[in-house]
Amino acid sequence: MKKIKVIGSYITKFGELWDRSLESLFEEAVFGSLNSVDGEKFTNRKVTHQYGTTMSEAKFKLSDIDAVFVANMAAGQFANQLHLNALVSQMLPNNPVSFRVEAACASGSMAIEMAELGLLSGRYRTVLVVGAEKMTDAMVSDSTKILAGASEYQKEYGSTFPALYALLAQAHMQEYGTTTNQLAKIASKNHIHALNNPKAQFRKEIPIDVINNSMVVASPLRLFDCSPISDGAASVILTTKNIKKYSNKPTIEGFGHGQDSLSLVDRKSLTELSATKIAANQAYRQAKVKPKDISFAEVHDCFTIAELLACEDLGFFRKGEAGKAIDNNMTTYGGKLVVNPSGGLKACGHPVGATGVKQIAFLSEYLEKNSKIKGKTFALAHNVGGSGATAIVHILSKTNK
Amino acid sequence: MKKIKVIGSYITKFGELWDRSLESLFEEAVFGSLNSVDGEKFTNRKVTHQYGTTMSEAKFKLSDIDAVFVANMAAGQFANQLHLNALVSQMLPNNPVSFRVEAACASGSMAIEMAELGLLSGRYRTVLVVGAEKMTDAMVSDSTKILAGASEYQKEYGSTFPALYALLAQAHMQEYGTTTNQLAKIASKNHIHALNNPKAQFRKEIPIDVINNSMVVASPLRLFDCSPISDGAASVILTTKNIKKYSNKPTIEGFGHGQDSLSLVDRKSLTELSATKIAANQAYRQAKVKPKDISFAEVHDCFTIAELLACEDLGFFRKGEAGKAIDNNMTTYGGKLVVNPSGGLKACGHPVGATGVKQIAFLSEYLEKNSKIKGKTFALAHNVGGSGATAIVHILSKTNK
Repeated sequence: MKKIKVIGSYITKFGELWDRSLESLFEEAVFGSLNSVDGEKFTNRKVTHQYGTTMSEAKFKLSDIDAVFVANMAAGQFANQLHLNALVSQMLPNNPVSFRVEAACASGSMAIEMAELGLLSGRYRTVLVVGAEKMTDAMVSDSTKILAGASEYQKEYGSTFPALYALLAQAHMQEYGTTTNQLAKIASKNHIHALNNPKAQFRKEIPIDVINNSMVVASPLRLFDCSPISDGAASVILTTKNIKKYSNKPTIEGFGHGQDSLSLVDRKSLTELSATKIAANQAYRQAKVKPKDISFAEVHDCFTIAELLACEDLGFFRKGEAGKAIDNNMTTYGGKLVVNPSGGLKACGHPVGATGVKQIAFLSEYLEKNSKIKGKTFALAHNVGGSGATAIVHILSKTNK
Repeated sequence: MKKIKVIGSYITKFGELWDRSLESLFEEAVFGSLNSVDGEKFTNRKVTHQYGTTMSEAKFKLSDIDAVFVANMAAGQFANQLHLNALVSQMLPNNPVSFRVEAACASGSMAIEMAELGLLSGRYRTVLVVGAEKMTDAMVSDSTKILAGASEYQKEYGSTFPALYALLAQAHMQEYGTTTNQLAKIASKNHIHALNNPKAQFRKEIPIDVINNSMVVASPLRLFDCSPISDGAASVILTTKNIKKYSNKPTIEGFGHGQDSLSLVDRKSLTELSATKIAANQAYRQAKVKPKDISFAEVHDCFTIAELLACEDLGFFRKGEAGKAIDNNMTTYGGKLVVNPSGGLKACGHPVGATGVKQIAFLSEYLEKNSKIKGKTFALAHNVGGSGATAIVHILSKTNK
């Protein structure tokens, strides 16, 4: 595969951002990632006087952006705003070619994948990917209905997402003896990780007994097993140009994409997400690495059981063994690998269209700070749509000489 | 550019399809295009016994489909169904990788463009593109509101699409003396073309005086200047594999993509769509043809004025001269070129997410029946999102030896 470098990134604060519009979130992320690259600087789209100023050829310029890929799940329902590619493109003075992608909660990683196809095609050499979701303006009951649009409404309407994942949790408990306490440990760990992430929605340690005694949402899942409703945006800039200049920047080593049936009733197994396995195998093969080579992973923990399934389906632990591994602190600092160093969807927050982009942005920044002093460090991002109908996996690396 | 062949296509009936669901429209188009290729045949997704049967290597098989690209504008609002890539992928027994694209009324051509990037990247060799929209289940007032999601709702909310295009019509009339009778001629011509298209929503000749006396929707646009609200789907199969075998199939010679501001207030000119000009120039350059080489064009006539603008912005006639050319029958059978042989959005119908795919499907089939006996025949497809914020142009050819 042609080398793709992550040369810029930005993540807005995630949370209940009452004073922010969808557009302002997009704008902050777009200009945030542009300003993170060594080159032209922008205040916002109104201040464009720096655009086109003569700069050394080696520096990054706005005009280097050949195309923009926009991820969002449901601004149509949340704000009656579609055609988001045009909304974002016009923020930039050069009004670049732009695309909008939707794949429910996997919209973000799908936009990254589309951008990669654009780069690999040779048609584009530098692209910007941005994902955003503004969810908190809707009533919680409306948000729940809107999110249900990610499952097959003819077959699963009436089932909320917690109910679907609760079925997966029950199946896993029955088959492998997984306990609610192991699920609670996942939530607790992700809240601890979020203490180190200033962008996270919740930066507070939650004791295990508080989690275990929180209200039941869909048995066995309790309040603290569920990711929140969030506002937020994230952006990355990817390039295949001047690769040598960016040798110290993270590299996308491989990506994979799997599909499964939209509704649980059509699945062969309820104790795994086969789309994750397909996507992971593709990505590992392309990156020429094995699960044991991964040091950090951002996985799709929309519910605690989803992180447990991911840890098994991504190959970090054998099927049925992730519960115990989590209990033994194997997925936090000092463990086999750090899963969800950002706090994950659970504690960092889950503005759905932003999540997949945030994973890549976060891991790029995390790799820059936490890679091995010498050699290559690998990180993995895993983003899921619906209850596992779409899964996309990315593998990144950072090399220090 | 690597050669891309259109090896299969299908268009459902367009119209008010009260007995059809979004899913059934997708399904008819997907299996319709698969069955149009010489190879494995399928009845529908329930009958899969022919999948995997041993066939000669040369024949097309379902397993040749590497990826599916799904176009839809607003099923989120119309049916609370998102995650449409997964919805379509699960119709196929091999559950292929799938993507969903949205760019308002340009969703269809953007899905084709994304599919082309996928093919040109080398990651996929044969892809299926399908677009569908099921609009008539909503009240007309709701549909109008949903369609407004294609413009910038903070700046243009309250303006319906007819009102925005009426402003463009007024500007063109004032600057170039374009008349309402010339606009009426466009509608009349497209209704005549639709008489020859069995899939068209309206297959009835509409006399000029009926058009000129129909009710005013947004002055100067009357009822018959506006495209209808429609249900429908279309699909094409594109490949870069076994090109020699498909030498008699239409070829995609080039494509271009332009962006402009979402709202009219930010435009430099109201008498042209600059996004169309950018897209057309790219496509002509890539295809190495000029506007005069085009024999057939499907252009985005959501309103009659939109076809007139397209005829100028695509270079078929000079700025300000399309009105007279249309009056002189230059854009119908026997003219300089045939514009909207399908009847266009106006008479064939405009299920928004399907339109851009239908243009390519229709032109491929039309070229197979109407290309020059010897030599190369060129056709152009032009699809617009909103009031011109996104425009995508494709150029196809068919060669007879």
